[in-house]
Amino acid sequence: MKELGIDCYLVFVRETAAMADPVRDLIIGGDVVWDSAFIFHTHREKLTKIAIVGNFDADAERAKGIWTDVLPYTKEISETLQKAIRNLRPSKIAINYSVDDVMADGLTHGMFIKLQTILSSYKRKFESAEKLIGRIRGRKTKTELELIRNACLETETINRAVLPQIRPSMNEKEIQQAFYQEMDQRSVKESWQRISCPAIDVGPDKNFGHLGPIDTMKAKHGHTLHNDFGVQLEGYCSDIQRMAFFGPKESIPDELTHAFETVREAIRKAAEFIKPGVKGFEVDNVARNYVLSRGYSEYQHALGHQVGVRAHDGGVLLGPLWERYGDTPKGEIEENNIFTLELYVTTKNYGMVSLEEMIRVTGDGCEFIIPPQEAFITLAS
Amino acid sequence: MKELGIDCYLVFVRETAAMADPVRDLIIGGDVVWDSAFIFHTHREKLTKIAIVGNFDADAERAKGIWTDVLPYTKEISETLQKAIRNLRPSKIAINYSVDDVMADGLTHGMFIKLQTILSSYKRKFESAEKLIGRIRGRKTKTELELIRNACLETETINRAVLPQIRPSMNEKEIQQAFYQEMDQRSVKESWQRISCPAIDVGPDKNFGHLGPIDTMKAKHGHTLHNDFGVQLEGYCSDIQRMAFFGPKESIPDELTHAFETVREAIRKAAEFIKPGVKGFEVDNVARNYVLSRGYSEYQHALGHQVGVRAHDGGVLLGPLWERYGDTPKGEIEENNIFTLELYVTTKNYGMVSLEEMIRVTGDGCEFIIPPQEAFITLAS
Repeated sequence: MKELGIDCYLVFVRETAAMADPVRDLIIGGDVVWDSAFIFHTHREKLTKIAIVGNFDADAERAKGIWTDVLPYTKEISETLQKAIRNLRPSKIAINYSVDDVMADGLTHGMFIKLQTILSSYKRKFESAEKLIGRIRGRKTKTELELIRNACLETETINRAVLPQIRPSMNEKEIQQAFYQEMDQRSVKESWQRISCPAIDVGPDKNFGHLGPIDTMKAKHGHTLHNDFGVQLEGYCSDIQRMAFFGPKESIPDELTHAFETVREAIRKAAEFIKPGVKGFEVDNVARNYVLSRGYSEYQHALGHQVGVRAHDGGVLLGPLWERYGDTPKGEIEENNIFTLELYVTTKNYGMVSLEEMIRVTGDGCEFIIPPQEAFITLAS
Repeated sequence: MKELGIDCYLVFVRETAAMADPVRDLIIGGDVVWDSAFIFHTHREKLTKIAIVGNFDADAERAKGIWTDVLPYTKEISETLQKAIRNLRPSKIAINYSVDDVMADGLTHGMFIKLQTILSSYKRKFESAEKLIGRIRGRKTKTELELIRNACLETETINRAVLPQIRPSMNEKEIQQAFYQEMDQRSVKESWQRISCPAIDVGPDKNFGHLGPIDTMKAKHGHTLHNDFGVQLEGYCSDIQRMAFFGPKESIPDELTHAFETVREAIRKAAEFIKPGVKGFEVDNVARNYVLSRGYSEYQHALGHQVGVRAHDGGVLLGPLWERYGDTPKGEIEENNIFTLELYVTTKNYGMVSLEEMIRVTGDGCEFIIPPQEAFITLAS
């Protein structure tokens, strides 16, 4: 909070069992029923944490032992909340809304109106807590890093088990089915919605990432297989793309090799550039410029997103300064952030080539969480 | 929609796996990733249903077969959404926010700002969809009614199994534990948060409904036992209160009998009064006036709330016209609404007496879902 010049952070929720602010598990833990306010206030190095909850919820909050004060109320939260804020005299009040970042947009519009009414004399002090939430969520602990690594290793293991089974003439849905079978056998869950996890693309005519698997798209000798895949293990996710080729190594066309090397090197250059303190869009820029310099048109998405409890974990984005990304690419990279590095180029005759790696930001650079792909995986044809 | 004079209803969501609007399962079903708009429009008896989703989500929406049109977009939702609304020329646009009703407050503040920006020339037409959602949610289907009845019967069964085991000298936490044991054996889940489901109150000194069970509160001969309890079975809930007395029937003090009869009759009178078309506050008023006429002070909560997928299912409330309930008591009762009827009175020497029954509104009145409690349950002492 100090880093961001925020002296007061207010989480305002109700009936979290019906609809939970995404910060619930990060910051509160457990459910509340009536209107509840969780206040974090810093003043001269001292952090005060206050929970204002319905009488009914007060015991549960006290039992957590994390609050400086638990203030129960019986009828309406207004007075207790007004008094608490008056005592703290905050210069700014960060609240959970964000146009750009779903993980920081937990305050509903109805609750926002209610908060504005209760704290009407403070409403000019309201500001988005998106940066604060992004930092809390983005700084992974040692345990979190370990769990994410495990999810990456599991993804690799499944890829290694399933890819050799894929034969030309199988269609995309059948290939996806082979992954599902292995996932079910190993009792692992998909990292995003099952219908497109893994996303499977074969051949030159598929636009990666926008369509699900299609049962008329069949694998063929001399064509590529692309998959975008991740698993969720003990609550943490992976998100990795791999490329394979149906046929022996010697038969890979130069055009595909050139494309593969471009993607691999663009990722490597971004990985060499990234370190704490640089900004999201600067990292994207390194890869994007390299792709352009190799004669390809630029990829139509961001170079990387954070990964954690979710495959898309919000916060700072390694993206270009396009309107759709809002301010998220302007944030600074921090140590122990986990990012994907992913991009595609489009060849003239063989369709798209796309890879996605995952990195952890270290004190002065980054490390790949599992080894990045160096060359096409070759499949029997 | 026609009944409420709403010609256009717009659900605007993103990344529903991270935070789902409570109408998701009711209206959309399944998850979407990118910004998505689900539009319901009526014009001259014709209902048009449009889904505007990211390309990636389009196949899944088409497969549902419920949309008149699925409009995929690739970069930004703005243009497609603007065009769709322009074509429909709505006179009002109902959106999911509500100060009073959590179940109708699914639009986050960040998404509200985004919607205002995209549809800036329509923002004066925005209004809360709370009444519409309340009606959709409140009108229970035959299957839903059956599932709620099953949850009520299960609650009764557990009460009958556990209550006879309760002995004086057991404290509230031990009594709650006996319920948990039976629930676990029968593999049923609590209807609201476990810490207070069942809520257990013994003796004259406990303020019902605000404190959880306390391990220093012990059951005693000549005292009451109150529980507020519900279970969730196949996704539907119950919410029922029962009163017991430690000692034989003959030893129940007149003061307690008078209080019990007051509560029972207040509920009965409200049940005789309620029917489609009357308003929530009018029903509350019948019970409240009766309680006052019997010389007790009035209960400090609403007479009844709707029950369904959740114990507190939102929509019209059988409540007094107090500020904290907003407009929810002003709504009209409809056939196949499920309500609780619940209230307490406070005696001078024996604490509170409180009951809660559940009713289904019929075409011209109501029926109790399970038989209401007629007299104190007596427990060995």
